Amino acid sequence: MTSTTPGPSSRPDLRVGMVGYAFMGAAHSQAWRSAPRFFDLPMNPRMQVLGGRDAARVADAAQRLGWASTETDWRRLVERDDVDLVDICTPGDSHCEIAITALEAGKHVLCEKPLANTVAEAEDMVRAAEAAATRGVHSMVGFTYRRVPAIALARQLVAEGRLGEIRHVRAQYLQDWIADPQAPLSWRLEREKAGSGALGDIGAHIIDLAQHITGDRITEVSGQLDTFVKERPIAADHSGLSGTAGESQEMGRVTVDDAASFLARFTGGAAGVFEATRFATGRKNAIRLELNGSRGSLAFDFEDMNVLEFFDAEEDDETAGFRRILATEPTHPYVGAWWPPGHGLGYEHGFTHQVVDLVHDLAGGRPPAPSFADGLQVQRVLAAVETSSDTRSWQQVPA
Amino acid sequence: MTSTTPGPSSRPDLRVGMVGYAFMGAAHSQAWRSAPRFFDLPMNPRMQVLGGRDAARVADAAQRLGWASTETDWRRLVERDDVDLVDICTPGDSHCEIAITALEAGKHVLCEKPLANTVAEAEDMVRAAEAAATRGVHSMVGFTYRRVPAIALARQLVAEGRLGEIRHVRAQYLQDWIADPQAPLSWRLEREKAGSGALGDIGAHIIDLAQHITGDRITEVSGQLDTFVKERPIAADHSGLSGTAGESQEMGRVTVDDAASFLARFTGGAAGVFEATRFATGRKNAIRLELNGSRGSLAFDFEDMNVLEFFDAEEDDETAGFRRILATEPTHPYVGAWWPPGHGLGYEHGFTHQVVDLVHDLAGGRPPAPSFADGLQVQRVLAAVETSSDTRSWQQVPA
Amino acid sequence: MTSTTPGPSSRPDLRVGMVGYAFMGAAHSQAWRSAPRFFDLPMNPRMQVLGGRDAARVADAAQRLGWASTETDWRRLVERDDVDLVDICTPGDSHCEIAITALEAGKHVLCEKPLANTVAEAEDMVRAAEAAATRGVHSMVGFTYRRVPAIALARQLVAEGRLGEIRHVRAQYLQDWIADPQAPLSWRLEREKAGSGALGDIGAHIIDLAQHITGDRITEVSGQLDTFVKERPIAADHSGLSGTAGESQEMGRVTVDDAASFLARFTGGAAGVFEATRFATGRKNAIRLELNGSRGSLAFDFEDMNVLEFFDAEEDDETAGFRRILATEPTHPYVGAWWPPGHGLGYEHGFTHQVVDLVHDLAGGRPPAPSFADGLQVQRVLAAVETSSDTRSWQQVPA
Amino acid sequence: MTSTTPGPSSRPDLRVGMVGYAFMGAAHSQAWRSAPRFFDLPMNPRMQVLGGRDAARVADAAQRLGWASTETDWRRLVERDDVDLVDICTPGDSHCEIAITALEAGKHVLCEKPLANTVAEAEDMVRAAEAAATRGVHSMVGFTYRRVPAIALARQLVAEGRLGEIRHVRAQYLQDWIADPQAPLSWRLEREKAGSGALGDIGAHIIDLAQHITGDRITEVSGQLDTFVKERPIAADHSGLSGTAGESQEMGRVTVDDAASFLARFTGGAAGVFEATRFATGRKNAIRLELNGSRGSLAFDFEDMNVLEFFDAEEDDETAGFRRILATEPTHPYVGAWWPPGHGLGYEHGFTHQVVDLVHDLAGGRPPAPSFADGLQVQRVLAAVETSSDTRSWQQVPA
Repeated sequence: MTSTTPGPSSRPDLRVGMVGYAFMGAAHSQAWRSAPRFFDLPMNPRMQVLGGRDAARVADAAQRLGWASTETDWRRLVERDDVDLVDICTPGDSHCEIAITALEAGKHVLCEKPLANTVAEAEDMVRAAEAAATRGVHSMVGFTYRRVPAIALARQLVAEGRLGEIRHVRAQYLQDWIADPQAPLSWRLEREKAGSGALGDIGAHIIDLAQHITGDRITEVSGQLDTFVKERPIAADHSGLSGTAGESQEMGRVTVDDAASFLARFTGGAAGVFEATRFATGRKNAIRLELNGSRGSLAFDFEDMNVLEFFDAEEDDETAGFRRILATEPTHPYVGAWWPPGHGLGYEHGFTHQVVDLVHDLAGGRPPAPSFADGLQVQRVLAAVETSSDTRSWQQVPA
Repeated sequence: MTSTTPGPSSRPDLRVGMVGYAFMGAAHSQAWRSAPRFFDLPMNPRMQVLGGRDAARVADAAQRLGWASTETDWRRLVERDDVDLVDICTPGDSHCEIAITALEAGKHVLCEKPLANTVAEAEDMVRAAEAAATRGVHSMVGFTYRRVPAIALARQLVAEGRLGEIRHVRAQYLQDWIADPQAPLSWRLEREKAGSGALGDIGAHIIDLAQHITGDRITEVSGQLDTFVKERPIAADHSGLSGTAGESQEMGRVTVDDAASFLARFTGGAAGVFEATRFATGRKNAIRLELNGSRGSLAFDFEDMNVLEFFDAEEDDETAGFRRILATEPTHPYVGAWWPPGHGLGYEHGFTHQVVDLVHDLAGGRPPAPSFADGLQVQRVLAAVETSSDTRSWQQVPA
Repeated sequence: MTSTTPGPSSRPDLRVGMVGYAFMGAAHSQAWRSAPRFFDLPMNPRMQVLGGRDAARVADAAQRLGWASTETDWRRLVERDDVDLVDICTPGDSHCEIAITALEAGKHVLCEKPLANTVAEAEDMVRAAEAAATRGVHSMVGFTYRRVPAIALARQLVAEGRLGEIRHVRAQYLQDWIADPQAPLSWRLEREKAGSGALGDIGAHIIDLAQHITGDRITEVSGQLDTFVKERPIAADHSGLSGTAGESQEMGRVTVDDAASFLARFTGGAAGVFEATRFATGRKNAIRLELNGSRGSLAFDFEDMNVLEFFDAEEDDETAGFRRILATEPTHPYVGAWWPPGHGLGYEHGFTHQVVDLVHDLAGGRPPAPSFADGLQVQRVLAAVETSSDTRSWQQVPA
Repeated sequence: MTSTTPGPSSRPDLRVGMVGYAFMGAAHSQAWRSAPRFFDLPMNPRMQVLGGRDAARVADAAQRLGWASTETDWRRLVERDDVDLVDICTPGDSHCEIAITALEAGKHVLCEKPLANTVAEAEDMVRAAEAAATRGVHSMVGFTYRRVPAIALARQLVAEGRLGEIRHVRAQYLQDWIADPQAPLSWRLEREKAGSGALGDIGAHIIDLAQHITGDRITEVSGQLDTFVKERPIAADHSGLSGTAGESQEMGRVTVDDAASFLARFTGGAAGVFEATRFATGRKNAIRLELNGSRGSLAFDFEDMNVLEFFDAEEDDETAGFRRILATEPTHPYVGAWWPPGHGLGYEHGFTHQVVDLVHDLAGGRPPAPSFADGLQVQRVLAAVETSSDTRSWQQVPA
């Protein structure tokens, strides 16, 4: 019997307009495409329109990434009747304006982290998000690492009390992509575009993860920022993450931090030690988290992302030890939708899980998490670290 | 400027008909869908038709997995004019008939491993494949693990001579999904459907990988097969990989091996030690490979699939050591199409890479690898292991 | 108050004569010296006399290693009235004669492994040992790795039933010290002196460990032996483990195996896979053991010797995982005598523990383990592997 | 030929008097005993006299640890004519007085770390040491971890420039022995005896190691101290490291820190992040060091103490990776004196190497390192961390 596969008739569409199509745009596209193939979603995401300034490039990206149409002006994209949700994948300096315009136009918003480049902008966004929420329009900030199964499992174990009282939080985000002084300038090294450097780009992730997993907030910090290489060659093509300097000998100033480290205090009393750097030679994307509690400990490293290490202090001494939990069992968060045990997931799956959670929340009328308010709070921690680095003393994080 | 994204006009379509939609069908679907989104392909894969016996189930699968239409009779699917390639994801007992029919109908064939349940069937398939090739119709067997970047890198290092003369090959494929005697019978535990047990299902992978990476063939073997649990509860739903026994107390005989181990000799003189088991409690999908050569060594474990360990014996003693190569650099095989360094890939990416290589070969008119002849040769090794286990002596693998 | 430390008056002396002073002699000396300093022993070991053929060299060794006197003829040493125990650290070809002479002279014997170079010799030694035992004269073979705390813990967990029914034993002893074809000949590469190569030297250890930890015996084997490099330069100084070829261009034949691998069957039904090699480039002293049972699994690697990995299949799926047990807790075997948790032990501590166990057994009049009969049984497994490699078929191990 | 082993006639004796015989005393005793057995020393250490207040206990310890005589008054020990060197293994509050008295009496001094409980005491000790040095009387502080082969190799690689310019120093010393609030009080938890808690006891080690390996000094710090458990049961036997509370319900105040963390700046510009804690549940003695430089990186963890990880950024991307260097080759520092490759060393070997270096320096008339001045500088860093924790701002370390 030959049949044509019918469309998913019973579910409402969720028509997505995405702005930006570089690294994050590619990851989000794969997520919108894959989520309904593996998860039973209450809405049917449609990759409706892709926004970008350069007509030729955005057209090319739309074809490659699978978007049905394009807009060269994000304001047009935001206004379109056939768009229900705006997915913001641009550099941080444009998040505030796009997000607020979209929310006011009645569109749900998924906004990449960091929420904004300044606390003031983030505060404006939170106000807009809260106003929109009263009209059933929702927003979410994209801290996708929360949705790595091993990390979601970590959150779960802490929430179940398996760690007891948390005393230590150790968090590092280590990369090395500009350890070479000849690596060219990019927008990520310019304060106007990126807001900050390692601190905001990757430090934001470990701040969010540490707070999310512990269920606690950071109340004060003492930090230091470093810019080890103060001038870099200007790349011919100055738009992307990567690129080589080519023949250009022109140098430009690096206006953000190369590395940030800070001590922190959590509401629950835990002592935190954080470090984010792009100069950890040999570490490519090492998000390392360790928690020590009165009943147990956890350790995670994104370079082995399907594994969570867990020490249960209630085991007897003879056989106690850090367990290498391969977080690929059907009982682990998100995993049942994928492959049999031991068949690991990759980086992009976190984005797919983000779409899954977001769609469920939108369909259920629930405010998604992390909210813009959560994003603002991370922003306040980042700002406190910067102030602390300037004043050379501890700095409170406003509640 | 608003634009509708045009189709990929310049590239010919490659219209795929897939038979089977369980575990392998889901993996292949994601591959067909994702490959053109990340790789610049010379043909445009179209997910045309999905085949399966049960009309309701196949319709449901087609909608979930994204196939445009369905057929309940694979012969109809194979004959369809709008199918260029048949992708066979059924149990091994049907491979031979489907593949030969498809090749004779002028369709390219991608066939899951093991190629067939018997050497005789595999020989028929090779004959059909060779005849088809003279008419420009190509075939490939799905040893996808070759396309894990760390493994492709291993192949490359050996080919470059970085290991020198290979002396030892150590290969294990360890799972534990039936270590519990209460795990139910499934088609994978029945000889008629599955051909063999751990040996053919997972042993086939490490035989292929060991031969592929070394560039050598196994010439003789001495093996032992074990069936530790000889009877198992019959599951209510008896069709899939997983499932629980429910209330059924009826027991059925396990007619395949639970575990296989064998010694091997390679053409180049290396000594091999292989082990495939579904009883390695705590190991979920541990494909472990080690090669020791006169100039260096390699080690790989799929439970940490983005890593290849490499020992270079030409380094001085002071700093020599196994290097943990995170195979996520743009210079590593397949990786440039994906994410920045350190953002690991998962299980399904191997299937996407398989599609990429296959499409390039088909567009270029080149015979893809691994060929059906490669699949037959693996089948001969499997058969020799079985014979050796019966005769309790070494057994030659026919050339 | 000034005092002179009195001797340990209440404990009887155990006066030791040791024959041989190379690698093993140094390890045994450190053990005799250290044991009474950390453990509360019922006898007081005295390092009475060291035996060796070359008067100058043995005198030098005695001074360095701390022996009170020397003998150049082992027969004199064995006869001395002031010797209670003879510790045999010579190559395997002399074990039989020395051990039997010593036992007949009423001396306890500690004999390095392998017990002998042939089964026939080993049988003679067992007869002598059993006869001596009836006169209260005891003997032990030096499989020291049994006394690494992590391994003793492994034995304990199996004995407690934590692994359930054992199905798989995977054992490798990997070295690389002659992977370079220019590494010179040494007595360890000559059949007359060493008996066999990798098989007897290091394969003997993993055979003993596998049987000891499981509490099971190997009943049959199928093996292959390899000599990858058949001729080697003759070293100027041809007596020791290490050394370089110097200018000598003279080549000599290697008359033992470079590597051995074999399949095995255990009395309890487990399937074994063993491998011993001196050609595993980059592996220095990797004794790797893995056991898979119905209730759990164990893994050990001597290159991280203070760690035992343990998987408990009775944990729930959510948090099950291989535990990295740091075997340095006071509750772990032998550890309480040493340092606080986390302060690891080294290679030589196994020898110290061997002395501790031996002294306790002698003082208590109990036959020490492993006995000469245990050593003979290992020898029979070695012989069966050799025969199997010759006959190309499975070989029974005589009970 | 029978001979009596003559004494080591040609070498002068180095007669040692040791004060204290607990954990450190046992480690030092094993070092004095073992050093001449494995290393060719220019002097012959003699374990002459052991000092301790309680006559019975010190006599018992002397017999167990192998000291020829005892003194119950350390002043008598220091004055004895048959003592050339005083080895101080007591709690920190007595270091200053014993060391200065010994130096003034013309005895060399080896003093356990931390050098003293206060900067003022340490300054007095440096003055005494410098005065003594002009008379050929030398002193050394016992930062033994410098002599772990993998760490000595780390120092060497940095000194050779293999890391380039150091940008990050990450150092943690993690233990968990008082994570349980019921663990009893001990002298290590009292400020009067111990000076400080985790900071001085274990933080001192990582400060020394970080400075030693980089060859740099810490110039300023921002720190936080924590006492998570402020009262603990008073143990019946209150003298040792371990012990249980028994029935005693009496509670005593913890007057030192349980954990310390601090940011640091090095003279060479590197950013440091340090953490020392006794509350890292599951970590037993994890001294973890990571250095990231412009040309490479290093990583070390004492829980796998025979391994140094090294990333060489000058390798090509394809095969670059952290190398797991097993620091057991004869070319590695100190290793040639011990066992063949892969036969790892343990905790106590660092103490033996300390004796070896000290004896060579004394025989050669060279000032040993680390000197008391080095110990004072570490003390100043500790004091700056404490002040910083009090003032909640960065603190300079006096040069």
